[in-house]
Amino acid sequence: MLGSTHGTLTSGLRARVVACGVDPRDAVRDAVSATASDGDLDVSGRPLYAPVPDLDRLFRPRAVAVVGASDQEGRPGAGITRRLIGWAERVGARVHPVHPGRERVYGLRCVGSVGELGELPEPVDLAVLLVRDPLPLVGELGEAGIGFAVAFASGYAETGAEGARAQERLAEEARRAGVRLLGPNTNLNAFEAFREDLPGPAIALITQSGHQGRPVFTLQELGVRLSHWAPTGNEADLETADFISYFCERPEVGAIACYVEGLKDGRAFLLAADRAARRGVPVVAVKVGRTEAGARTVASHTGKLTGADRVVDAAMRQYGVIRVDGLDELQDTSALLARAREPVADGVVVYSISGGTGAHFADLATAAGLRLPTLSPARQRELHQWIPEYLSVANPVDNGGHPVGDWRGRKIIDSILADPAVGVLICPITGPFPPLSDRLAKDLVAAAEATEKLVCVVWGSPVGTEAAYRQTLLGSSRVATFRTFGNCITAVRAHLDHHRFTSGYRSPFDEAPRVPSPSARKARELLSPGRRLSEHAAKQLLRAYGIRVPREQLVTSAAAAVRAAALIGYPVVMKASGDRLAHKSELGLVAVGLTSASQVREVYRELTEIARLEDIELDGVLVCQLVDRGVEMVVGVSQDALFGPTVTVGLGGVLVEVLQDTAVRVPPFGEDQARAMLGELRGRALLEGVRGGPPMDVDALVEVVLRVQRMALELGDGLAELEINPLVVLERGQGAVALDALAVCR
Amino acid sequence: MLGSTHGTLTSGLRARVVACGVDPRDAVRDAVSATASDGDLDVSGRPLYAPVPDLDRLFRPRAVAVVGASDQEGRPGAGITRRLIGWAERVGARVHPVHPGRERVYGLRCVGSVGELGELPEPVDLAVLLVRDPLPLVGELGEAGIGFAVAFASGYAETGAEGARAQERLAEEARRAGVRLLGPNTNLNAFEAFREDLPGPAIALITQSGHQGRPVFTLQELGVRLSHWAPTGNEADLETADFISYFCERPEVGAIACYVEGLKDGRAFLLAADRAARRGVPVVAVKVGRTEAGARTVASHTGKLTGADRVVDAAMRQYGVIRVDGLDELQDTSALLARAREPVADGVVVYSISGGTGAHFADLATAAGLRLPTLSPARQRELHQWIPEYLSVANPVDNGGHPVGDWRGRKIIDSILADPAVGVLICPITGPFPPLSDRLAKDLVAAAEATEKLVCVVWGSPVGTEAAYRQTLLGSSRVATFRTFGNCITAVRAHLDHHRFTSGYRSPFDEAPRVPSPSARKARELLSPGRRLSEHAAKQLLRAYGIRVPREQLVTSAAAAVRAAALIGYPVVMKASGDRLAHKSELGLVAVGLTSASQVREVYRELTEIARLEDIELDGVLVCQLVDRGVEMVVGVSQDALFGPTVTVGLGGVLVEVLQDTAVRVPPFGEDQARAMLGELRGRALLEGVRGGPPMDVDALVEVVLRVQRMALELGDGLAELEINPLVVLERGQGAVALDALAVCR
Repeated sequence: MLGSTHGTLTSGLRARVVACGVDPRDAVRDAVSATASDGDLDVSGRPLYAPVPDLDRLFRPRAVAVVGASDQEGRPGAGITRRLIGWAERVGARVHPVHPGRERVYGLRCVGSVGELGELPEPVDLAVLLVRDPLPLVGELGEAGIGFAVAFASGYAETGAEGARAQERLAEEARRAGVRLLGPNTNLNAFEAFREDLPGPAIALITQSGHQGRPVFTLQELGVRLSHWAPTGNEADLETADFISYFCERPEVGAIACYVEGLKDGRAFLLAADRAARRGVPVVAVKVGRTEAGARTVASHTGKLTGADRVVDAAMRQYGVIRVDGLDELQDTSALLARAREPVADGVVVYSISGGTGAHFADLATAAGLRLPTLSPARQRELHQWIPEYLSVANPVDNGGHPVGDWRGRKIIDSILADPAVGVLICPITGPFPPLSDRLAKDLVAAAEATEKLVCVVWGSPVGTEAAYRQTLLGSSRVATFRTFGNCITAVRAHLDHHRFTSGYRSPFDEAPRVPSPSARKARELLSPGRRLSEHAAKQLLRAYGIRVPREQLVTSAAAAVRAAALIGYPVVMKASGDRLAHKSELGLVAVGLTSASQVREVYRELTEIARLEDIELDGVLVCQLVDRGVEMVVGVSQDALFGPTVTVGLGGVLVEVLQDTAVRVPPFGEDQARAMLGELRGRALLEGVRGGPPMDVDALVEVVLRVQRMALELGDGLAELEINPLVVLERGQGAVALDALAVCR
Repeated sequence: MLGSTHGTLTSGLRARVVACGVDPRDAVRDAVSATASDGDLDVSGRPLYAPVPDLDRLFRPRAVAVVGASDQEGRPGAGITRRLIGWAERVGARVHPVHPGRERVYGLRCVGSVGELGELPEPVDLAVLLVRDPLPLVGELGEAGIGFAVAFASGYAETGAEGARAQERLAEEARRAGVRLLGPNTNLNAFEAFREDLPGPAIALITQSGHQGRPVFTLQELGVRLSHWAPTGNEADLETADFISYFCERPEVGAIACYVEGLKDGRAFLLAADRAARRGVPVVAVKVGRTEAGARTVASHTGKLTGADRVVDAAMRQYGVIRVDGLDELQDTSALLARAREPVADGVVVYSISGGTGAHFADLATAAGLRLPTLSPARQRELHQWIPEYLSVANPVDNGGHPVGDWRGRKIIDSILADPAVGVLICPITGPFPPLSDRLAKDLVAAAEATEKLVCVVWGSPVGTEAAYRQTLLGSSRVATFRTFGNCITAVRAHLDHHRFTSGYRSPFDEAPRVPSPSARKARELLSPGRRLSEHAAKQLLRAYGIRVPREQLVTSAAAAVRAAALIGYPVVMKASGDRLAHKSELGLVAVGLTSASQVREVYRELTEIARLEDIELDGVLVCQLVDRGVEMVVGVSQDALFGPTVTVGLGGVLVEVLQDTAVRVPPFGEDQARAMLGELRGRALLEGVRGGPPMDVDALVEVVLRVQRMALELGDGLAELEINPLVVLERGQGAVALDALAVCR
């Protein structure tokens, strides 16, 4: 499986190289075939491929050794040993307690030491380490040929810097010994009592806290199948990304549910999410760290970085990871996405025994972006055979109650489901009234079993012990049952969005640049480690990547300024230039619209005089071409602790300063994402032209964003920060010009 | 009760009259005592007071007549009659079936006609009308001295214009006969089986759909007390507002839960909400109509207007009505607000047996605006007596699990609750694990019974049949139990917000103007029914209300323009003026910054020439003072179908055009709300001064908003629309100037 996956990945590889020159008009995109010899790294040195770890024997070991096993009730190891033995009996695995002094534990013969495990006649796949310090055992496990270990011990990264170092030593030892380690600071959630009797695709669960995974696990009591639970603990070795990669290759897994407090490695997570997107396997995640306070609490709890939340959020969306806030949403969304088939249409019909219920649900669903098509006149006529004329059946379909009590109920449901405009039927039942709702529930289940389309029910009673709910609805894996309107809408929206996302998905890793462009060499020469570049130098950087800047000259005398102005053409702009200069406008160090040699001469004197008085060192004065008015944007690069360079675009001026109206992406990303960034801006209408004005050159803006991304990847850590502010986007066909830029080198 | 209420209301009445002159500096506010002889109407003719209907005998009739009663199973009336008899037996009321031809129905002696009901020895308080056309009966009911009727018949406003007329006839007849009518198109939800054994304050429920009220009603099965259910149906007579007013005066009612599809009368709703706010009784409402689609569906379902949603939303917030989206939120929020005592502090502590759970909850709670104070070092030391040192107890408090299994569990809870910084303790239990969670639940219940503070538990298991949940937690009315983090956070936030709101509440009705200001007479003379005013005339309107406009003159010759410019002082602005003129700038009919007589003369000729070529009728050219730069705002008046005039304020320029960054309020409102409007603007930071610039004159802006409100109230329907755009707000202390205005008269 691994080989073929890798093959699929590399055979589709195309590195798109942007050839950059001074003038963007000269720049052409050239598709260059990449070969395997390019290696599996992008131009920034980050991996473009991550192998799928084979975890079959971690989850289904033939035999398990328990180091620190006990049967003395009250000892911490006793309960764990007992539960593990129970699990092994259910799945047909064998347990070998390891104990130097005991003959038997819970009746099982003990092995005297880890070293002796290799001498057993059967292969031991997994060692459960209940000891306080697992480090000394790891090497022995490797020698005994045991591929997996689960470490319970705590006191590692979650306790601070010293613990983090101990954790790193443990990870290093596991790598050396060839043992894949789960934990430390984890437990046996992977070996809980999974129900084997439930049909359909399953949820695979990954959690960084056992307690937080319990509600999803408990879904089995409501009939939702679970195939795996990976409690990743401190992730010294195996991490969330490994389990995502593994689970999305398992045929029984319909969706992956994650509870994430912090990511160990940003790129590893993205590569795993990319694999899931290619495979069409939905990943639903709660990711803690919306707030600073949340991030701090997580750090003190697990020692994990949460990353800048908006960057995490963007990265997840780039790869189709569905982020939700609550564990209830995690349950409901992953259960639906695991079990629902591919949608045949995105039209949603709301069907109810109450006009009020239908109106209320339709209102919330529409507000959340679901599409509720009006049913055709022919369909409405058909429905009116069974539903009184005075009730509206356009969508929502209000049956008034009575028809669900007899044979008409099923007819109505089948008629709605037969409509080609309909992909999803949602029936909210807020008030259970057994004479009607019992039969309604049965009809919905029967109809759901007979269709490929998605049938959802909201059981609105807060009690939830009613037979129609517990037996009828939860008894069917084909009906998706919810308890609230909100969770139903969130899940259906995620289902339709995910299908739309994966069906059009092109992996950005296939197109990520592997070799530096000619621009990179030029640009690197301009970098100056640890320093901030002057405006002039920063603009040279942009020119190296073919981003247009105004015609300009750096001059050091009034006479040179006048000659430069004549060459550039009046009117001109003049600005003081120096590598320590910020807030030039506030200091009076910018003059716009100079129309004569005498003005230029005078301004030169003024600017140098202000700099002298303010004790600012200048490297000269810039004489620049005056650029037509357009829409001011900001494009920038910053470094994220988790993901490395990120690219930001925003609307300039008041919008970026006051409203922080920006969008961010984690490279690599393609043109589609660059356009999507603009769509996220609240002030995006400005680019479409306001007050009947002409539309702006969005293509040129997108091109600048992609060139800046290329620069961020190629210069890597060398470029700590870049901000083009403003980038003036002119009318369509006229391009975009960087009027000012700031660059900080590392 | 009525008299004293009214007394409280009017004794506090103060009409604040704004004396308006040309210069806002001259304007002073004068507090004039209002007397009862001013009437109970504000200056726009809308009521300032609504009496509380006495509905005791509607909900607890001594005897009920059932017109159309039946005991023939299968007939629609039979089930209803049977259920009503069951209810009457439980509460000790008597039922009189009315039937011309039958001796007895379900064993009860029939009365031959409605007229004969007045001859019974006991008073009949209520008639339930199961007949198809109740209209002919209403007069007879009045004559028989029956004060209340419930009409089941449908086919009224929900079917269209003809039905709406029939409904109006029914309402008219009820008014004439002195019968208060519930319905038509309603049911007997008011006479369901309410549990009498539940302790504590109750929820009173008002719904415009029986089905949609069922989940709140069903809360009784989870131990939450319900006192009333008013199914208002089509609201021909009794409406949602009547029930809010009545319920908030009932001592047993702790909170009012509403499901609203449309409001019958905007002002009546506000007066009822005002009464609830004065009484400190929370009103929690689902209001359908977030989207156009939702509004349309409601209209076809109930024949009700939903009103512009953002206006409804603002109106609700003005009076502290808590709007929620889902019925689950309605249940959870109203249950908490009904039962929780007044908060003693707004600090929230999250307490959990898992660090992950605490971090996750804290993250979401902080993001939602709850305040999680860090516990004092002393408190943390105390907690560490029972909780291992390596766990964080700063808040969230992570106990690591074990301490809840013994005597330490209760100690920890009591210690947290003893902290003066703490008003609310929230314990999320996501994974039920009976050895720990059973005892934890018991300890939480015991602690909650012993404190005035709020104790909340989130039972995160999706199953919900566990004993710790069903028996222990739901068995206590002192613990607020939720199923999801989200609903707990929403409810706690609403609880703390509501207390903050009501404790600082001053009714705007007490201060609403009752008599026209001197400005009103001047302003009315400027109105021109059915027409749009010229810029010059619109500015006169503003001047009448003491809103500053630039010095300006309307001239009709170039020579007059030059004279005007000299008088006003250079530089000047010139604009074409006419009552059909919009988009002056786009047409080139505005010239800014003219510095000489020759420029003024030339521009006069240009403007009149453009107007001639474009065939635009001018009443002249405005020569205006040039006003310093400031922050451009928009202030306006529009008419809402439900609430009448509304006042809008927004940030001007790009912000209002592209981002629609505006806030709206329904008059009457005070200065606090005018300031709150500015706080709602996303671009509000502009008013505080950007890039280290000076702050703007927010006081002057607030004053303009209040003067515009006054104008909206005094001119009432005469002023269809007003837009001051831009209103330039200058630096603090410099005021605000209306540079342009548009007014449309009705």
